[in-house]
Amino acid sequence: MLVSGVERWEGYSGFLLEMIRAAGAEIGDEVVVERPDGSRFRGLLMFKGELSAENVLVLKLSNGYNIGVAVDPSCRIERVAAGRRPAFTRPPPPPQKSGLPRVKVIGTGGTIASRVDYRTGAVRPAISSEDLVSLVPELSELALIDAEVLFSLYSEDFTVREWEAIAERVKRVIEDGFDGVVLTHGTDTMHYTAAALSFTLQNPPVPIVLVGSQRSSDRPSSDAAFNLMGAVWVAARAPFGEVVVAMHAWHSDEAVAVHRGTRVVKMHTSSRDAFKSVNATPLAILSGGSLKMLDSDYHARGGDGFVYAPGFSDRAALVKFYPGMGPEVLEYLADRGFRGVVIEGTGLGHVARRWIPVIKRLTESGFFVGMASQCRFGRVNMRVYNTGRDLLNAGVVELDDMLAEVALVKLMWALRRTSSLEELARLMLTPVAREVGSRTLPQGVGGV
Amino acid sequence: MLVSGVERWEGYSGFLLEMIRAAGAEIGDEVVVERPDGSRFRGLLMFKGELSAENVLVLKLSNGYNIGVAVDPSCRIERVAAGRRPAFTRPPPPPQKSGLPRVKVIGTGGTIASRVDYRTGAVRPAISSEDLVSLVPELSELALIDAEVLFSLYSEDFTVREWEAIAERVKRVIEDGFDGVVLTHGTDTMHYTAAALSFTLQNPPVPIVLVGSQRSSDRPSSDAAFNLMGAVWVAARAPFGEVVVAMHAWHSDEAVAVHRGTRVVKMHTSSRDAFKSVNATPLAILSGGSLKMLDSDYHARGGDGFVYAPGFSDRAALVKFYPGMGPEVLEYLADRGFRGVVIEGTGLGHVARRWIPVIKRLTESGFFVGMASQCRFGRVNMRVYNTGRDLLNAGVVELDDMLAEVALVKLMWALRRTSSLEELARLMLTPVAREVGSRTLPQGVGGV
Repeated sequence: MLVSGVERWEGYSGFLLEMIRAAGAEIGDEVVVERPDGSRFRGLLMFKGELSAENVLVLKLSNGYNIGVAVDPSCRIERVAAGRRPAFTRPPPPPQKSGLPRVKVIGTGGTIASRVDYRTGAVRPAISSEDLVSLVPELSELALIDAEVLFSLYSEDFTVREWEAIAERVKRVIEDGFDGVVLTHGTDTMHYTAAALSFTLQNPPVPIVLVGSQRSSDRPSSDAAFNLMGAVWVAARAPFGEVVVAMHAWHSDEAVAVHRGTRVVKMHTSSRDAFKSVNATPLAILSGGSLKMLDSDYHARGGDGFVYAPGFSDRAALVKFYPGMGPEVLEYLADRGFRGVVIEGTGLGHVARRWIPVIKRLTESGFFVGMASQCRFGRVNMRVYNTGRDLLNAGVVELDDMLAEVALVKLMWALRRTSSLEELARLMLTPVAREVGSRTLPQGVGGV
Repeated sequence: MLVSGVERWEGYSGFLLEMIRAAGAEIGDEVVVERPDGSRFRGLLMFKGELSAENVLVLKLSNGYNIGVAVDPSCRIERVAAGRRPAFTRPPPPPQKSGLPRVKVIGTGGTIASRVDYRTGAVRPAISSEDLVSLVPELSELALIDAEVLFSLYSEDFTVREWEAIAERVKRVIEDGFDGVVLTHGTDTMHYTAAALSFTLQNPPVPIVLVGSQRSSDRPSSDAAFNLMGAVWVAARAPFGEVVVAMHAWHSDEAVAVHRGTRVVKMHTSSRDAFKSVNATPLAILSGGSLKMLDSDYHARGGDGFVYAPGFSDRAALVKFYPGMGPEVLEYLADRGFRGVVIEGTGLGHVARRWIPVIKRLTESGFFVGMASQCRFGRVNMRVYNTGRDLLNAGVVELDDMLAEVALVKLMWALRRTSSLEELARLMLTPVAREVGSRTLPQGVGGV
């Protein structure tokens, strides 16, 4: 892989990489490093993080500890034994049956397309979607699978460019006549991407299903196969054409919850049922081989109205308020060319009163300020307290029941469509993909 | 009320306030404004927001609409009829019984100490804690109540100074021998204050109970009386000495949940059971006149170890990461004299890889960077993925299962205790008030 013009391999580059290559060593092989002073280190060759110095070689010693050995060109590296290879082998894919729905599986990275490094216990992206399809032969009963890898990134590294690339690829797949699309995706920011696709691919004729896993696919507790089967099932057979996230509904392997792309967040760092619909019930639950629609009001598969509206601005920001926080960060953003912000205010949508004059000045200069709540559930209502009303008078747009993350993505999308504050406010509050303005919200805080 | 040297009353100041006073008019009175050009406006005198021009008088017309009338000293203002007064009257307080526990109720503001303006439907702070005690005579059965108003602020306007003032007052109340303390507080940032008091007043000999309401006390659906009774019950009789939040446990008037001050957040903008324990069960549930402890491991009432550790720095910030966000905001904060930040990263505690060199540079210059998760539940674990490990190598401190808001408050507190990064890391990860490092977390996402 070339990074900034420098070839890197497993964290190694430069002369050290050349020495490793000359020795014919692979990661996991047993190697010996001899230095001119006679010192000698024996261990398994490890990959290393990007912050290690260029001349450091990482070895796992027989006692299990990793050490970094400083190497210079006068040292000698010898490969003395082949490493144990991962037990992770790919069986031949099962024959695909004709007559089944055609589903495209597009890999974008994440744990669902990763493996645990058998030497370090660390997880690294490695497995392609094709591997996964081979590894989950049940998929061939559900659909004719056509898999490809678009890219393989940790989802925290995604930017608006990745959202745009995925949306464009999905659009072409739809034009190619597939019956459904599955995107494997890192879970960290899957809900942001789901929102981005919801605004870009409106009323799609087929399901567009994002799926990830919280445990990598070669661990016994992995949810990768179960989630992938659920996602392919939904892509192939669900009666709706919408952008959704399909993930474990509960801890056990009983059901997959199908969340609307604009109503879902990752609510737990590690549990398998980390994704929850917020301010909405899930769209559907897949359990025991049948899909139960929990919301009967959906855009039907094959329905009209498909709109492809691509493009995002990276000049929108999300700012979470806390007690004592000053409003200067808004001025900083405006000075740096940002055109708008979504504030995660407190409660019904508040910030300290001393923010009000700053916000007023910014909105008068054409800077968009939208208000969401840092309470995870509920809707903002800025007409209850004086502070809220004064914020509205200062030009703040109250974002109703829109999730802060979704509001940020929508603002990034809307900024490519207009630069008028009035039109931005109208766009932000007009539902595009059921992201705002539900008339009733589920009461209470427990999510499904 | 004097604000910045200018007297204000219901939003009015200067010559207009003098004219209103000269007319003897109160808010809600029917008044007539006559201008020299002969134009005449009749309506109810309304309070007004701070952003109105100084010369504007707000009237509610008989058709229900509010208008702003520009007034100059040549106009005439006449009071023609008294307004209907709020139906909110204060009955005489019941006689207090001797032999009951002594509870101090301290007002700091918020909806629990507010009323709905009967003319506008808006909510404004108005009622003192004394009023509330008079209005909830049942309190006299529970305890000998001694009420006072420390200040009356919207809680979104709180800063570290208010936390310090409350803590100091509570310390004195404890020294005065009260059996428990109740703080009425706006709900918006009640959880931040609860964390601040938890770090300042460690192992207190009596319960310190924060309480608020989601509906103001003169609305039929108000939770003010119910919550206040629960809070006084806990302050007077609970077997523990800890800082807690006492609020409705469910929608109905059945139970009050008692949350630890470092394990609670406001999770819903409006519902009565908005406060939830996160990464912990509630400490206790008060229902049917008895308190059920859900955690038997607590600091006992009257127990040893009371420490008063006052003081917060306002040089710590909270930053929520989102896809595509650049690391420049960290440099901006450092340039402005901030000494540390808590990042709400994605998933197990991640940000984009391009943040890593910036973070490394900052931590090397003595700037603290802690990592919490924007997933509401779970704990960060930065040893699973390469990005996490590289962030740790860059000097990031993983904040385990600490809530981001609590971590921010703790960092503000810790910065007053040390400036060594090593000592800061140690302080942040050493439990002071059970805020970090629980060995087991409740699974799943539904809170109680």
